Amino acid sequence: MESRMNPANHQIRLAARPAGLPAGSDWELTTEPVPVPGPGEFVVAVAYVSIDPAMRRWIDADYREPLAIGAVMEASAVGRVLTTQHPEFAVGDHVYGGFGVQDFARSDGTGVTKLDPLLAPLSSYLAALGIPGLTAYFGLIDVGRPRAADTVVVSGAAGAVGSVTGQIAKIKGCRVIGIAGGPDKCRWITADLGFDGAIDYKSQDIERALRESAPEGVDIFFDNVGGEILDAVLTRLARGARIVLSGGVSQYNAQQPRGPVHYLELIAARASMTGMLTPDYADRYTQARAEIAGWLRDGRLISREDIMEGGVRAFPDALRTLFAGENIGKLVLTVP
Amino acid sequence: MESRMNPANHQIRLAARPAGLPAGSDWELTTEPVPVPGPGEFVVAVAYVSIDPAMRRWIDADYREPLAIGAVMEASAVGRVLTTQHPEFAVGDHVYGGFGVQDFARSDGTGVTKLDPLLAPLSSYLAALGIPGLTAYFGLIDVGRPRAADTVVVSGAAGAVGSVTGQIAKIKGCRVIGIAGGPDKCRWITADLGFDGAIDYKSQDIERALRESAPEGVDIFFDNVGGEILDAVLTRLARGARIVLSGGVSQYNAQQPRGPVHYLELIAARASMTGMLTPDYADRYTQARAEIAGWLRDGRLISREDIMEGGVRAFPDALRTLFAGENIGKLVLTVP
Repeated sequence: MESRMNPANHQIRLAARPAGLPAGSDWELTTEPVPVPGPGEFVVAVAYVSIDPAMRRWIDADYREPLAIGAVMEASAVGRVLTTQHPEFAVGDHVYGGFGVQDFARSDGTGVTKLDPLLAPLSSYLAALGIPGLTAYFGLIDVGRPRAADTVVVSGAAGAVGSVTGQIAKIKGCRVIGIAGGPDKCRWITADLGFDGAIDYKSQDIERALRESAPEGVDIFFDNVGGEILDAVLTRLARGARIVLSGGVSQYNAQQPRGPVHYLELIAARASMTGMLTPDYADRYTQARAEIAGWLRDGRLISREDIMEGGVRAFPDALRTLFAGENIGKLVLTVP
Repeated sequence: MESRMNPANHQIRLAARPAGLPAGSDWELTTEPVPVPGPGEFVVAVAYVSIDPAMRRWIDADYREPLAIGAVMEASAVGRVLTTQHPEFAVGDHVYGGFGVQDFARSDGTGVTKLDPLLAPLSSYLAALGIPGLTAYFGLIDVGRPRAADTVVVSGAAGAVGSVTGQIAKIKGCRVIGIAGGPDKCRWITADLGFDGAIDYKSQDIERALRESAPEGVDIFFDNVGGEILDAVLTRLARGARIVLSGGVSQYNAQQPRGPVHYLELIAARASMTGMLTPDYADRYTQARAEIAGWLRDGRLISREDIMEGGVRAFPDALRTLFAGENIGKLVLTVP
């Protein structure tokens, strides 16, 4: 399988702390020898690198423990074990872990899980079966607490988390409206994913569109975006509404971040806004993944990966693609 | 008792919809004959008018059903029944209701409750035994869900709601830090009310002060103020923190309202921000009032009313006093 294996390890490192959207010059491509595992270690040949909105936060000076200048960029990834001195990981094992933006990663197994490539394509473990799918699952079910016939609104609806969130809400019997940018995404979430409605934030007035498509108000808002979208939905909450704060991608590159001006609508609606982080639910990942895998198998859930070619050197471009909102589904980078 | 009764009914009416802080010219003083009750009605001689931050919202063009220009200003008030043709209200009964900013109010009894003047002074029914006290009670207990040893932060801590909230939190075994403006208020809440700490937002950096006084983070933030105070507390949340949104007095007169810029800290802290409106708990008022009255009787709770003289014509001044933050405790206006 690794016959055309590159004998060097290409890595993307943080060269400068970006202000706003990261530029190409904020990154450095370095080349090292392929690592060799020490006792209790193994080396992974990375196959797909996950491109995540949260990456912008990890490199921000304000982040609690920002990535150091010169360090290999952190990333979730999937791959196969190439060489091993670890008793529990054998050559050829398919694995998921925080392998970083590099061709090869050395690991002692911390935070690494083995994957079943027969259950779903490897890239799905970065999408519906990975953190985005688990975020959708626990955020919607545990924090949003959907009841049948609830009106659920999802922002970033054609993205990795939003697309799964809306589909799970449909499975739970809710009416689902997705907010996304552009006609292609809106068509995809309604025609292919079965959302009941779509609002194109690039061409529509969200508040007015919600007044028409959710006249009784919004029961659950699963927010991945923040900014003007959050403000618009705040004005259309049903009584007792739950806002699930999963992310705020519109704010991550903002040099002057904005808070939700209409936050006092939470009082009028007796509504809540609750933040969630997926790793808190780690002890339930196995159960959740089994349920998600069942939905994938039954065709009730679609996992779409938007796969960018070009290897780790394409990473700066991939991040730009993500923040330009050009991907549909989960953006991943192949490592050849 | 009403021997020096004024033979006319003075009323404050909304003359113009204010932009920002209401000015004297936004109000009109009118004089009418004292009303006479029709069948099933009674007339109340108002004794105290409640001066509430929410009043600014009731007259705002953006409010859901704003008070009409020319209408008598809405207000909660307490008084005594002067004349009656209502079978359930007798002359001399002490009553609470939405009687408006006027000397005399005609009522059919809707939303009017009888008060026991032996339990507490009449003005307390606008403070600890009234909506402010009930807001503190249900907001803290039902929405905040205090556990013993929680760190509770209260804004507007020397105000009608905040002063009761902090005292109930102490009764529940919490560590309580109040945020208030100026040394007099800070001294009152610590020396007289027993708060564990006070932060003077006029002279202190709130974020830094919280780092010192709540090094483990804030478990419950009961917010009456919003603005910079909310933003500062958002950066100091403990994991699983609950923010109770009771009001946002800093925003009510703001021509350019601001949202909480640091709202994404809710994600890092897995925290929630929940709006509450006291009337939702109306079926539990009797039980709550009995408990609050017990605390007042035992001296565990102090209800302080800041009483302004001058009758209804002093209402515009009273509202200015409130928004200038010059009152300590619940601001009420006497009606002679």
